[in-house]
Amino acid sequence: MPSTIPEAFLDLLTTKKSFAHLGTTMPDGTPQVTPVWVDWDGQHVLVNSARGRLKDRNMDTRRKVGLAISDPENPYRYLGIQGEVVEVTEDGAAAHIDTMAKKYLGQDKYPFGQPGEVRCLYKIAPRKVHTMGA
Amino acid sequence: MPSTIPEAFLDLLTTKKSFAHLGTTMPDGTPQVTPVWVDWDGQHVLVNSARGRLKDRNMDTRRKVGLAISDPENPYRYLGIQGEVVEVTEDGAAAHIDTMAKKYLGQDKYPFGQPGEVRCLYKIAPRKVHTMGA
Repeated sequence: MPSTIPEAFLDLLTTKKSFAHLGTTMPDGTPQVTPVWVDWDGQHVLVNSARGRLKDRNMDTRRKVGLAISDPENPYRYLGIQGEVVEVTEDGAAAHIDTMAKKYLGQDKYPFGQPGEVRCLYKIAPRKVHTMGA
Repeated sequence: MPSTIPEAFLDLLTTKKSFAHLGTTMPDGTPQVTPVWVDWDGQHVLVNSARGRLKDRNMDTRRKVGLAISDPENPYRYLGIQGEVVEVTEDGAAAHIDTMAKKYLGQDKYPFGQPGEVRCLYKIAPRKVHTMGA
């Protein structure tokens, strides 16, 4: 399987309001899947979470992840990625979640922040990519 | 986290045409996430695949799985499940995929079958359940 995202499917990471379903791994090896907002920096899939959450703890320790990103207008068109978290950073994460709020909600400011919450950005390098649909 | 599916979220497994995003584990430990049709037998989440596929091979060997099932009408309402494949069977699997074609496509017969394909049914017992939305 190739490790690059086909040009024709980049819309699922950029312009479309697609959710990624992110698979991380629990300490006992069980996969944990959650829907997340998703972004693309040209090389990495970007996911934004908050410190202390289950997926934060999983990705901080176990870097291998899986993602499926379906077209919100056609569930039979999707992009599947096996990848690796190559960077975890708080730098720029608060600004980035506002960008995501703009993309997904049309709002300038992320409205769901909790008091004391520390946002965190996970940069995922694709290792194996598959697609379905056209 | 409880191990039972709240009554109020059973529609995502039964009446709604929700896709489950199923997380299985590759031999090297990487999570693999794919969208699948989903069903509920009253005790288990049912997933139908075909022998030899990646998720078949993963689930046959590594029984721990994760699922997220989002409401097709509201992506902020979803059901997350960590579970275990407690039964893998070909019995009834061919008939079951026709039932799924009826639910998801409104067709009596599954139209995507491949020559020589052997359908297989995976019965997943929920171990940890969480929900978002109402």
